[in-house]
Amino acid sequence: MNTADAAAVKLFQKHEASLRAARSACLERGWFSLFQETPDRHPGGEAAREAAATAFRAQLGRPFELEQPGTIDRVGDEVSPYTCEPLGIDYPRGDPDALFAAARRAMTSWAAAPANARLGVCMEIVERLYADVFLGAQSVMHTAGQGALMSYAGSGTNALDRGVEALAYAQAAMADVPAEALWERRFGATTLRLRKRYRLVPRGVAVCFTCATFPTWNAYPAMLASLATGNAVIVKPHPTAVLPMALAVRACREVLAASGYSPDLVMLCCDTVVDPVGKRLVKHPQAAIVDFTGSARFGGWVEGNAAPALCYTETSGVNTVVVESVEAMEPVVRSLATTMSLFSAQMCTSPQNVYVPRDGIRCGGRRVAPEEFGAALADAISYIAHDHRRAGQIMAAIQSPGTLALIEEMAGAGRRRGSVLRESAPYVHADYPAARTRTPLLVAVEAGERDLYGEERFGPIGFVITAADRDAALDEAAGDARLGGAITAFVYSTDESYLTRAEHAFSESGAQLTCNLTGPMPLNFAAAYSDYHVTGLNPAGNATLTDLAFVASRFRITQLRAPEKP
Amino acid sequence: MNTADAAAVKLFQKHEASLRAARSACLERGWFSLFQETPDRHPGGEAAREAAATAFRAQLGRPFELEQPGTIDRVGDEVSPYTCEPLGIDYPRGDPDALFAAARRAMTSWAAAPANARLGVCMEIVERLYADVFLGAQSVMHTAGQGALMSYAGSGTNALDRGVEALAYAQAAMADVPAEALWERRFGATTLRLRKRYRLVPRGVAVCFTCATFPTWNAYPAMLASLATGNAVIVKPHPTAVLPMALAVRACREVLAASGYSPDLVMLCCDTVVDPVGKRLVKHPQAAIVDFTGSARFGGWVEGNAAPALCYTETSGVNTVVVESVEAMEPVVRSLATTMSLFSAQMCTSPQNVYVPRDGIRCGGRRVAPEEFGAALADAISYIAHDHRRAGQIMAAIQSPGTLALIEEMAGAGRRRGSVLRESAPYVHADYPAARTRTPLLVAVEAGERDLYGEERFGPIGFVITAADRDAALDEAAGDARLGGAITAFVYSTDESYLTRAEHAFSESGAQLTCNLTGPMPLNFAAAYSDYHVTGLNPAGNATLTDLAFVASRFRITQLRAPEKP
Repeated sequence: MNTADAAAVKLFQKHEASLRAARSACLERGWFSLFQETPDRHPGGEAAREAAATAFRAQLGRPFELEQPGTIDRVGDEVSPYTCEPLGIDYPRGDPDALFAAARRAMTSWAAAPANARLGVCMEIVERLYADVFLGAQSVMHTAGQGALMSYAGSGTNALDRGVEALAYAQAAMADVPAEALWERRFGATTLRLRKRYRLVPRGVAVCFTCATFPTWNAYPAMLASLATGNAVIVKPHPTAVLPMALAVRACREVLAASGYSPDLVMLCCDTVVDPVGKRLVKHPQAAIVDFTGSARFGGWVEGNAAPALCYTETSGVNTVVVESVEAMEPVVRSLATTMSLFSAQMCTSPQNVYVPRDGIRCGGRRVAPEEFGAALADAISYIAHDHRRAGQIMAAIQSPGTLALIEEMAGAGRRRGSVLRESAPYVHADYPAARTRTPLLVAVEAGERDLYGEERFGPIGFVITAADRDAALDEAAGDARLGGAITAFVYSTDESYLTRAEHAFSESGAQLTCNLTGPMPLNFAAAYSDYHVTGLNPAGNATLTDLAFVASRFRITQLRAPEKP
Repeated sequence: MNTADAAAVKLFQKHEASLRAARSACLERGWFSLFQETPDRHPGGEAAREAAATAFRAQLGRPFELEQPGTIDRVGDEVSPYTCEPLGIDYPRGDPDALFAAARRAMTSWAAAPANARLGVCMEIVERLYADVFLGAQSVMHTAGQGALMSYAGSGTNALDRGVEALAYAQAAMADVPAEALWERRFGATTLRLRKRYRLVPRGVAVCFTCATFPTWNAYPAMLASLATGNAVIVKPHPTAVLPMALAVRACREVLAASGYSPDLVMLCCDTVVDPVGKRLVKHPQAAIVDFTGSARFGGWVEGNAAPALCYTETSGVNTVVVESVEAMEPVVRSLATTMSLFSAQMCTSPQNVYVPRDGIRCGGRRVAPEEFGAALADAISYIAHDHRRAGQIMAAIQSPGTLALIEEMAGAGRRRGSVLRESAPYVHADYPAARTRTPLLVAVEAGERDLYGEERFGPIGFVITAADRDAALDEAAGDARLGGAITAFVYSTDESYLTRAEHAFSESGAQLTCNLTGPMPLNFAAAYSDYHVTGLNPAGNATLTDLAFVASRFRITQLRAPEKP
């Protein structure tokens, strides 16, 4: 073993207990985290937070320092959703051929390192990203538009936990292959003894596309799973949310270099909206793995065109709610209002379509008509929107100016084809008065207007849909998932048989179902080590964070056999 | 649990120890088999063998009885390579839409059954196929052209072991997902407790393409892996080798029906050479998984067009030998001659290109020139060919008349561009004088004639290729694997450093390497539970028999979460 490998195996030993605990958590799927989930408990304390704020301000208006091969020129178009001013940061734009070539070169010693050495270095990367989590959070806020808390917990610690989860699966999948074996069999009068050696071989260069609103959450698991299994990773960030990934790439490169491996195992490949490089990366002959998070349109193209590269996608979906019967309406409405307001519904798990039976929701001894329910939901959203400090914490900012136009379009369509229960409007963010904000639009329509609500309408746009009856409500909601794709689904019912049917319907249509949940947790919270994110059974994506399938194909097995010396 | 599920779980208990032993074997990778690998030890004894011969004769000239939905008409074109007479058997040809619809219907109760219930029924299928192994062997002989022993051991017990191996992996992958969990976390002042239930959901309908020369060997693992994970399987046999798969499908259907599940979980979809149905099956909207064994050309199309269906392929390759230095030449030449003659090199693992350095093979104190080596190899093949009984046992018959034309073409090219070391000729099979037979053609060429030997030349066609030196020999051989695809590679060298380089070169090009093997075992023997077959790293295929990646994506995970009742 060379010096780098020996040192990296020591890193593995340092993190071995954490990985073991993470693997147990994956098998038991209770709550688990390696990190402090609230910023005030971060070991770096207030000093770390302040240092990050200073570092972030210092970065604004300056080139991002990232020495990597193949740089042609520099690009940068980011605008903060909070200040609506350009960040003024530019990044290297690389020649894809040069990046792939450098990545292949970098892989030689990495692929030859023991699996534990790679896992040790990957855990060091995780540790570094956790140390830098406040700077990462600043970068997520000012590109994706997330609120401060979500930037820390969702894009920081939870994303890192999902990364460690992927490492735990990668470790398990690699450990399933023994290093060697002795095979013995009689052939006629002789006994043949073959010594066999098995070797884990990475697929090649992985391309990781990251999205604009939640870049790190899917990226960390994909990057770490690819790296741990010996591959190199080229990160292709959305051109409006580069900084979080540029920071992550630089951290990876520094840890890799410090560990004695080539930093070119992780590189950034930037492009611009007008001159996208995505298709070239996917069709590059050296592309062996593609991880994609982003639009359904480009995701569909990736799924159809990535072969022979493996591809893992999360695109988008129409997440649904069915409210059939409740014990008390107020907690349900409050939970829905909060979740539909959370980060202005710019999460892949945000519910969009709320189905209600025409004859009303059973509630105690009476029926709540769709109109009454719709009004209550609109009021509950308005309650959040009304207090601008609360609105800022929950709704945060709108990532893309395009979302504002979509809200307008949907409001117009809602007025024509149903009614607008709640108009969307800007609210004034308490800390960032120039922030791009919109409170949720809520539209009431009859079931049947599927061309309106049957696809994802990204952003703070919700529909209250009146279905013929409770069975139709369930059918429609499950149909949305099956046809339009869905990651999550939510049902409220006091009828056990209805819940059982809902479980079957959403299991078949491939949406994760949450029943009768109210209270302080956002309904769409996805717990690392516990919630399997995306089933692969509907158009919302083909890969799950995280199961064995997410890691087991990222490496291959070669073998040597030879007669055993007597 | 319903009656069928309860009974199937009992079947699981019956086979549990076997599955556990198989899983241990997969992790330890020593020799293991659940079956008697020589026909005389089969528990059915001579009686079973005779009954199979009778049953086979009785089937000739008659419709194959297989009641399944969607039959349009009947087709059948098989000709025995041993008698060169039509088998006269016809099979139902089904409407693909009807077959997919029936398969989907059949999946409902199967997908809902506990994983162990499915594993129990799958092991019963294996048991049935083992009981019927002699009839299966007859059918393989008279379609694929294999010899009697290979039909029993290779297409029978070894194929079944590979099937059990796939079941053991499927069991492990499914066991990685717990049935339920309790997740607990504090949110502010409240503690939220969520009960989570996880459900394994099959992908959908799997299509399994089987090849003409070795149909069961890839089919059993694919079919059993898909079934165990809850999917239905439509088997699309090569139109010239239907009978082995028709028998397997019928056995599956009978066991499924007897276990209380729908027989339509396994169906046969026949076509003809002039009216192939393959592309329709792959592009069918209900196709969720495609397992393909066959030509590189159609396999490449499948890999590029199967999405969104998963695809697992084994196509073809250029398997190579490098003879650099030996302690004694005779055992090496004899092993090569036998392996290149075995089933007339109609195996995906048969070596085709034998590289020799121009300055000769070091052997004891001298150098054996390429010409001398080529002559010795030709002589050793002729020694086998000369004794027609021995030839029959080893070379067996030629599956496709097309192979005869290819031999002619290659002989002509060999004469023009190099020399023919050994002409191919028919031999008279001792038991079947009308058998379609050809002894191996052996051509000597210089390295550089890659358009001649750089792709798979299916059948008894071998090349002795003179390379500039021993390094060039290794480079050329590894290049064949990387560019043309390869499953196996063989190196003979007494130089440890050369062997180390060979290990690296073939590991990188994705071929399984066997070093310095001589003796009674065919060089290309692939041991179930021990040898990983196909790496996925070169064009010879993208799937390995068997690793976790082969099974882990065949099912998906859905989940339900709800507040835990206090």
